[in-house]
Amino acid sequence: MRIAVLGVGLVGGSIGLAARRRLGASVAGYDPDAAILQRALDVGAVDDAAGTVAEAVAKAELVFCAAPVRALPGLVADALAASGEAAVVTDVGSTKRELTASLDGNPAAVRFIGGHPLAGAETAGVENARDDLFAGARWYLTPDAAAGGIEYDALQRAIAGLGARPQAIDAETHDRLMATVSHLPHVIANVLVEQAQTALSEESERLPEVGPSFRDTTRVAGANPAIWADIFSANREAVAAEIDRAVERLRAAAELIRTGDAAAVGDWQRDAGAARHRLLEAASARGALRELRLTVENRPGIVAEVALALGRAGVNIEDMALYPAIDMSAGAMSLWVSGDADAARALAVVHELGHAATIADGV
Amino acid sequence: MRIAVLGVGLVGGSIGLAARRRLGASVAGYDPDAAILQRALDVGAVDDAAGTVAEAVAKAELVFCAAPVRALPGLVADALAASGEAAVVTDVGSTKRELTASLDGNPAAVRFIGGHPLAGAETAGVENARDDLFAGARWYLTPDAAAGGIEYDALQRAIAGLGARPQAIDAETHDRLMATVSHLPHVIANVLVEQAQTALSEESERLPEVGPSFRDTTRVAGANPAIWADIFSANREAVAAEIDRAVERLRAAAELIRTGDAAAVGDWQRDAGAARHRLLEAASARGALRELRLTVENRPGIVAEVALALGRAGVNIEDMALYPAIDMSAGAMSLWVSGDADAARALAVVHELGHAATIADGV
Repeated sequence: MRIAVLGVGLVGGSIGLAARRRLGASVAGYDPDAAILQRALDVGAVDDAAGTVAEAVAKAELVFCAAPVRALPGLVADALAASGEAAVVTDVGSTKRELTASLDGNPAAVRFIGGHPLAGAETAGVENARDDLFAGARWYLTPDAAAGGIEYDALQRAIAGLGARPQAIDAETHDRLMATVSHLPHVIANVLVEQAQTALSEESERLPEVGPSFRDTTRVAGANPAIWADIFSANREAVAAEIDRAVERLRAAAELIRTGDAAAVGDWQRDAGAARHRLLEAASARGALRELRLTVENRPGIVAEVALALGRAGVNIEDMALYPAIDMSAGAMSLWVSGDADAARALAVVHELGHAATIADGV
Repeated sequence: MRIAVLGVGLVGGSIGLAARRRLGASVAGYDPDAAILQRALDVGAVDDAAGTVAEAVAKAELVFCAAPVRALPGLVADALAASGEAAVVTDVGSTKRELTASLDGNPAAVRFIGGHPLAGAETAGVENARDDLFAGARWYLTPDAAAGGIEYDALQRAIAGLGARPQAIDAETHDRLMATVSHLPHVIANVLVEQAQTALSEESERLPEVGPSFRDTTRVAGANPAIWADIFSANREAVAAEIDRAVERLRAAAELIRTGDAAAVGDWQRDAGAARHRLLEAASARGALRELRLTVENRPGIVAEVALALGRAGVNIEDMALYPAIDMSAGAMSLWVSGDADAARALAVVHELGHAATIADGV
């Protein structure tokens, strides 16, 4: 398999390492910074250092665009234009709506599927790239109606091969979710730090220590300013809306605390603990894999449609296979999901979409 | 040295262990729960298990009240009433104003000095007690005007002996500081968790994963409901005021982000990172110890007055010694502070208070 990685920092470099070691792929790398590209070669993240985007993607079956969010619309368009007709192009940006919208009307959009791995590290740079950066991590994929089913299948298979767990989600939902579970925590960390600095500097000329709860809550404050300025800007509506919601909840919390009603405050505290437990444990309980066999029309968007509907229903697709019929008018699709409950839910969802489907016996 | 510990959970048990091993003290323990007291004996946190508060404090020179915040006013009053006239009584509660106010008019208040170690662990209970729980940790002391100087000196010496770094601060400032750097982060963690749960459950029947930034930012969500209900209630005015301030800052952040001005957002992000760095590094750079020699009137409150003034000026007292004059009308005091800059600042502060003082040569 031939892969191109455009932008070889921590994430791009880790994709290169994982693709070479886990998929046995040959990786062509490109980076606008020649020194970074050389380091990527040195650490074995790429096999070949390409001088241009076009050179990197020329023979690639799969192209990862791993540039800052702001640069992605241009880079993805370039990659689509320069790559072959069978090449799948994806990205690793933290926001997806603006990028997806930028491809409206691009005839090559059938070959683009947005992506976002929930993985990273404190330490940026290809020097810190690891082939296990994505091991077990959720990797969101955001196929839109224009995305091809074969392309989606190839991409999700490669993502699983890198060690991650792909899941389809529509771009708008993705951006709203990220605003809640990632962008808002970053905003709040900044606010806590500003507020502590102001309060503490009013008390004394030097700043006293802060405790462990402050350290944890503010760990992401001021994270990479260039990257985060892009993310906040690209996802500004969703982030601002989440802030508005947080403001409402904080007002309610202040009101509750002002009452001095320790029993009610204790209940609130207890509920928060239980909610966090549910959120963090959501992914831990899984059943044995079950196979769902579908017959579907062979048209663009069909795979995305099924994957998104299952994602909305909370069903996680662990693996997928497509078997186009000889005349290409219809195809068979197999989906593997975890446990009987998910299999039953998935069956109901695909029936509702009007597809014929059965649950296969055994794995 | 004989010490009493009233309440032998994680903090009380760790005080017992540290007092026995680091101070060579004999420790009498009391706990309303006999099973917990037995475990404290088993793990070596106390030498003797007392059946009542009075029995525990009877011969103690120093009494630590380590009960939940709500129970402290009663427990401290009992400890003062039952202990000898030379015994110093302190506590380890997370809020100080209500407790201090509860002792107004108590003639034994000269022997009480509030305390609050910035130490703890995820895992409560005397089974998790450690003799190094306070090693290097800030331990706030909140002497008020009624507190005795000899008593303060004895207490701060014992605290330093446990491995912690005592610092004087007035109760109101302490509670406001804690609202900013500890209680507000706990409130915000709860709000983030509530909000994520609501948002995510709107998207699908099951909850998708959350990333590392969410895990960190919400680590303290739902922390021990009984303890935190007490803390939020005891410090309700300061916590609610901090929430109000956070709301204003969040509104400003939403406004900034809505503009989509990536350069301005980047500056904000950069400032937050720098502020966090300053906050976390505040305590790291220290100079060699310098000794400040003072002559002061020998009256109640004098030590607290000096310690508080230095605390307000950002000067950290690393060690202290009192030398009362024979006729007890005046006394000499030595204070050790870190580095020349702090020594000069301390000198200015005590001169301003009207005391004669010099910086001694060498350490």
